[in-house]
Amino acid sequence: MFGKIEHLGIAVKNLDQANELYTKLLGREPYKTETVESESVDTSFFKSGDNKIELLAATSEDSAIAKYIAKKGEGIHHVAFAVTDIKSELIRLEKEGFQILNKEPKRGADNKWVAFLHPKGTNGVLVELCQEIE
Amino acid sequence: MFGKIEHLGIAVKNLDQANELYTKLLGREPYKTETVESESVDTSFFKSGDNKIELLAATSEDSAIAKYIAKKGEGIHHVAFAVTDIKSELIRLEKEGFQILNKEPKRGADNKWVAFLHPKGTNGVLVELCQEIE
Repeated sequence: MFGKIEHLGIAVKNLDQANELYTKLLGREPYKTETVESESVDTSFFKSGDNKIELLAATSEDSAIAKYIAKKGEGIHHVAFAVTDIKSELIRLEKEGFQILNKEPKRGADNKWVAFLHPKGTNGVLVELCQEIE
Repeated sequence: MFGKIEHLGIAVKNLDQANELYTKLLGREPYKTETVESESVDTSFFKSGDNKIELLAATSEDSAIAKYIAKKGEGIHHVAFAVTDIKSELIRLEKEGFQILNKEPKRGADNKWVAFLHPKGTNGVLVELCQEIE
């Protein structure tokens, strides 16, 4: 089942600068920074109510975030929904005709199993499903 | 104070088609549709946990949503944060150097006072502040 917006991912060029700016905006500092080697990104996380804002900066030109910024500029990159059972959701969504980018959930930032849907099938929105790793 | 993500606004070309698709994705139907004449948009709202997804379709070519789609294509248009006191937040954010697009909050969809920040000052993200009208 789909639950809350677990986080909103924002692609930024310079993580330090963006951290400073979002600290001013949200009125609080990031509670965590984390490098995800497999995705070539540095991330930082802010709490906003029961949701999170994830800032993502590329650590190499091959990173999906670097490519995204080159094509579309900085901005909202993806929305992640908390799901209770990621594997069954992926099976359900594939049957519904959504294009799954990761048939097997992979390990993402913030201790989560994650999988993405192709934005072509969701009105241009890169949708992430995520489930806490127990 | 900034709270949860009140809603995420997604710009779509065809609201009926997008409603069908997001009903499949989220596993539930929109709980409300609403036309906002002042913005020339038709909207629909889905609940996802304690957050909302707002789909927005233009009702005229002059609509900001029509212009957005012409320039960037369909996709995530804005993120709205719930704030407890929108007027004091706008004063605070202006002092912090953010560019406020509505110095006076205006009446938005879903019974809210709303105001927007220019995306140039927030890493390309169109940020909405919103407060329930009592």
